[in-house]
This record gives sequence, structure tokens and C-alpha cells, in this order.
Amino acid sequence: MVAATLQNDTFLRALQRQPVSYTPVWLMRQAGRYLAEYNQTRSRAGSFLGLAKNPDFATEVTIQPLERFPLDAAILFSDILMIPDAMGLGLEFVAGEGPRFAHPLRTEADVNKLAVPEMDELRYVFDAVSQIRQTLNGRVPLIGFAGSPWTVSCYMVEGQGSSDYRNIKTMLYAQPALLHRILEVTAQATLQYLNEQIRAGAQAVMLFDSWGGVLADGLYQQFSLAYIKQVCDGLLREYNGQKIPVIVFTKGGGLWLEDIVTSGCDAVGLDWTVNLAKARARINDSVALQGNLDPMSLFGTEESVRQEVRRVIDDFGPVGNGGHVFNLGHGISQFTNPEIVSVLVDEVHAYSQKMHK
Amino acid sequence: MVAATLQNDTFLRALQRQPVSYTPVWLMRQAGRYLAEYNQTRSRAGSFLGLAKNPDFATEVTIQPLERFPLDAAILFSDILMIPDAMGLGLEFVAGEGPRFAHPLRTEADVNKLAVPEMDELRYVFDAVSQIRQTLNGRVPLIGFAGSPWTVSCYMVEGQGSSDYRNIKTMLYAQPALLHRILEVTAQATLQYLNEQIRAGAQAVMLFDSWGGVLADGLYQQFSLAYIKQVCDGLLREYNGQKIPVIVFTKGGGLWLEDIVTSGCDAVGLDWTVNLAKARARINDSVALQGNLDPMSLFGTEESVRQEVRRVIDDFGPVGNGGHVFNLGHGISQFTNPEIVSVLVDEVHAYSQKMHK
Repeated sequence: MVAATLQNDTFLRALQRQPVSYTPVWLMRQAGRYLAEYNQTRSRAGSFLGLAKNPDFATEVTIQPLERFPLDAAILFSDILMIPDAMGLGLEFVAGEGPRFAHPLRTEADVNKLAVPEMDELRYVFDAVSQIRQTLNGRVPLIGFAGSPWTVSCYMVEGQGSSDYRNIKTMLYAQPALLHRILEVTAQATLQYLNEQIRAGAQAVMLFDSWGGVLADGLYQQFSLAYIKQVCDGLLREYNGQKIPVIVFTKGGGLWLEDIVTSGCDAVGLDWTVNLAKARARINDSVALQGNLDPMSLFGTEESVRQEVRRVIDDFGPVGNGGHVFNLGHGISQFTNPEIVSVLVDEVHAYSQKMHK
Repeated sequence: MVAATLQNDTFLRALQRQPVSYTPVWLMRQAGRYLAEYNQTRSRAGSFLGLAKNPDFATEVTIQPLERFPLDAAILFSDILMIPDAMGLGLEFVAGEGPRFAHPLRTEADVNKLAVPEMDELRYVFDAVSQIRQTLNGRVPLIGFAGSPWTVSCYMVEGQGSSDYRNIKTMLYAQPALLHRILEVTAQATLQYLNEQIRAGAQAVMLFDSWGGVLADGLYQQFSLAYIKQVCDGLLREYNGQKIPVIVFTKGGGLWLEDIVTSGCDAVGLDWTVNLAKARARINDSVALQGNLDPMSLFGTEESVRQEVRRVIDDFGPVGNGGHVFNLGHGISQFTNPEIVSVLVDEVHAYSQKMHK
């Protein structure tokens, strides 16, 4: 297949800190339950896994938000738990309770059985990437993604979401070598997985370190960032003559920004607790920043949403040699009114132009 | 009553950055469910509220951890939701689900009815403080506490714990003036409440801003810190000739340390994501720091617990003109083995001495 010419490269340019005429915007979890059309497709698919594992459905829901809003990037519809699913941990989505593994990793014997899965087990993901690229036909770039090794390991060890991470932290403090083995295998799998996504057509990749922020200072660097760096080091940073920018997002990781930059990423995602002006200054614009509107601000009025959007853009300030990709600081809530998302995107595009003179 | 002479003032001195011979230690939620004797008292009390509202029981459980461990401070056994309970919101503790209010604040009419409660409604708290002071008989100082206005308001508006704070954030973004009224009344109530605790015998006070870290940068300062400052400004900072140090703890607030110091507090509590060396440098030792061991580190081995304790103490470094109170970065888990708490306290006391030459 010959790739269609990219008609809107604002997102890719901003990630590389190249001049653009406005701040590009996409939203974490932009294809999701706040959209009626997503719920309809999911209902046809029968289940979340039925949706995520079927390239036709995955393509359909990936495109849906672009039909509603002039977003500057698409992101593969998938889940960060597809790797451990392919590792044989038995992923299930229990209604109203979120993901759960039938076989969590708790003992040395469990860990000894762990291996990098055959990438063919994840073929449906790469097929979805190819199909989405074809369907996009150059409209906007496509982002591929994976969870960070630490975050994926949290689910693998806990077996489900957790409020205190007691199982994985017990392992971290009492048997660190065992946890390092899990992280090592997961990092290798993640690297292969993302490189396959790039070969299938992903034009940028993002690592979601959703739970890095629960780690103590010092241990974040050893148990999360070191493995993010391992992935970044092995990624295809150029493919078919195109640069493939890499975004690293540790939720709750604002204090570690200087460290995160050492991963070699092109951009760092930030949550809403971080002041973007201070963040730029701390790293001297050495990478682009992505973020960082509070997703809950979308429960305000049209006027307050415009005001909060302007506040984020003002915080970043004149873009100069930096790079800013507008986003939420976490996934959009399923209870969000889609109408207000139009307001957000409109305000980002209109208000940000003055920052790009 | 004539107060007994304080036999161990290490904690109060460290908060005021005066020389001490070792780093004092106490643990958030040190009187709690990880102790069998606590569960026995609670069972006799019949319920959590039965325990917290009875000065005899509250005294008993406050003292329990001191009988086991050579801690350097006692903290009043109570709950941050006693103020809204006294405001008539109808506090209940549903087994296995945590606190819940029968009458959460959702509408302007709800808010219009809100008023600072008569402090007499909270007499049982002040009686507990007096009784604990008498029972302590000068053994260690007694800490009084309250929730921050923002954190208490989160519960008042949500009506219970929340994962996304949708109700209060909707109010914050859509009707900020309404939320400011709740915060104003709550701040006034908190101020009166803490001053009554001081008059009853509390020798230091702490504001728990457990949920300040969910706010966006800029909004934390307006909706949480401004009201913490209001409380700090009105507190009795000296009583009966004794200084009353004030500790402010915003969980997840490490990025805002410089701002928190402007509240006028004597010490800032920090969670385990913050590096203590960097924190000291950022504020040039202008206040003491309290923290910041990950409570989950207590699920490690005896050796790993000693190592993590030493890491925190090493991070703070030679105390010099600063002040360090050792603590966890959050309440101790109910699943903690009490034996390991002895190890923690022992290591803090032994290892920290070299930092106080």
C-alpha cells in the first residue's frame, strides 16, 4: 500500500517542536463511551473485547470522534492490557467492574512461566492499525500506544484495579528481583508490540504510565522510568523516511519531569496539576509537552470551558522553540456531553493562533 | 488542671526547627485497624461513630499505639468529617463502604442552609482532647487535627468518596461562587474547631488536605490553599505560653510546596513522591518537613523496611537549620503487621542520630 499524503501534520510537527499555525488537539479516550455512536458499535460487538479484537469495529470507533470534531490526530482504539492477554493471563471485562485477570502473577512460579508473546497473537491490533491508516487516508496522523511496563505489570500482579497496589508493592519491597523480571519481559513485549504498530502504520506512539505516580521518588526511576527508557531506546524512531515521535505520559509524574525527559522521548504528557509555564522552564523546551486540561472541567459551562482552555494555552505561552499538543490530563469522562467537546476543540484552534506568530 | 511537664518534646522542637538529638516519628492513622486492641475497643464501642464520639473510647485508642511503640507524638483519634456531621449533613459509616452523608450539598438551597455549627455540638472532641492530655501526663505531645476546607467539602458535596469528584468539580467549574460559600463556612468552622482543640490541650495541629491533589494547578491555590491559609491566619499560634506549631499536608501537592509554605504553617507534610532533599532546597528550610515513607513499604521485609527508612532519612540529610518529622506519606494500611512498625520506629530513632550532630 502506498500511504496517502498527510493533509494535517500539525500534531506531528508540534511533537517535533516545528512551527505550526495553531496548537493541535486530541483527547485521551476520544473514542469512547461519551459518544452514542461508540456505544452502538460496542453493543453490536457484544463486548469490550469483541470490539477491541475486531479490526473492523476498532477502525469504526477510532474514526467516530473525527467525524464529530476537527481533531488533529486519531488514536488506535485498543487497550493497554492486550499484551498480558496475549501472554495468557486471561483478560476479562466484568460489567461495571473493569478489567480482571483470571491468572494474576503472584508467585515465582507464575513469573517463571511469563514470556514475551508471539506478536502474531496480537495480529488483530496491527491489522486494525493498517485498516485505520487506510480509512484515514491521510486526514490526520494515527497514534499507536501501549501501557508502560510498570502500569501493565500493576494489572498483571494485582489482577485488577487497586486502590493501594498492595500486591505489586509487596513484591517491589520484598522481592524486587522478581518484579524486575516481570518488568523486563513486559518491556521487551512492549517494544516489539509498538514497533509492529509502527510497521503497520502508526505515525507516533505513546506510552501510558497511568500508575507511575503511585511509586515513591527513587523507585519510580528504577521500576517505571528505567523500563520506559528501555522501550524508547529500542523503538523505530524513523520508518519509511518519516520520524516517529514518542510521547511518554506518567500520570502524577510532574515532579519527575526532568527525569522523564532522559527517557529520550519527544514529548511528555502532563496532568492538570502541572503548571505548563513552569514545566517548560524546568526542561528548557528540550521536548514538547502534551496536556493538560482537567477532564472534569468539561462539566462546566461553555464559557468556563473556553476560559479553562485559554488558561492552559496562556500557561504554555508563546510557543517559540517549544512544542505544545493540547489534550486533557487524563481520559475523557464517559459522562461528558459531546457538545462541549466541540467548544473545547474550537477554542483551542481559535485562541492558540496568537501563540504561534 | 495544671499541665504535666512534657517529657519528650522532640516532635515539637523538630516542627520549630530547633536542635534535637534524633528525628521524631509518628504515623498517620497510628491508632487504627492494624492493631488488634483497636479492633477490640471498636467492637466494644459498637461502631466507628460510637468510638469517635465517646471520649473514653477515643482516649483509649489514642493511647494504644504508644503502649506498643516509642512514638514521639500522639494524635487525637477522630475523623475529619465530624464538622459536617455537626452541620447536620447526617454522617453514616456504611460497613465496607466508608463514610456517607445522608444530605449532601448539591443545590443553592442546600448551601444556603449551611452554617458554622455550635462548637458545643463537638464537645465530645474537646472532651477527648482534655482527657487524652491528662492520660498522656506529659509523655509525648498531643496533635489535634481537622480536614482542610476543600477536602471536607469534597465529602460534603459528593456525599461519599469519589473516584472522579464529578459533583464538586462540576460545581467548581460551573458555579464557583456557590463552592466558595461552602468553603468559607467550612473554613470558619474549621478555625473555631481547631482553636477549641488547642484550648482543650492540643499542642500542635495538622490540616489534612487529602484531596487537594486532585485540583488543577491554579485552582488548588484558589479552592484549597486560600482556605487553608484562612485557617492558619486565625489559629492560636501560642497558648498558655507554648507555641502551637501547625502542619499542612496536601497529598499529591508536592508541586505546590512553595505555595503551601505561604500559608504560614510551621511544617509541610509530604507524600512519598517527593524527594526530601529537593523539597528542602526549594524552600530553603523555611519550614519543617514531615514524611514521607510509602505506607506500602511496610509490606516488605525487616531489612527492606530499614533500608527504606534510611533512604528517607538520607534524602533529608544532615538536619542543620531544617526540621524533619518522620512519618508515612499517607495513613498506615489496616493490613500492616504491627511487628514491622517496631522495626520502623527503631530504625528512625537509631539511624537518624547521625543527622543531628
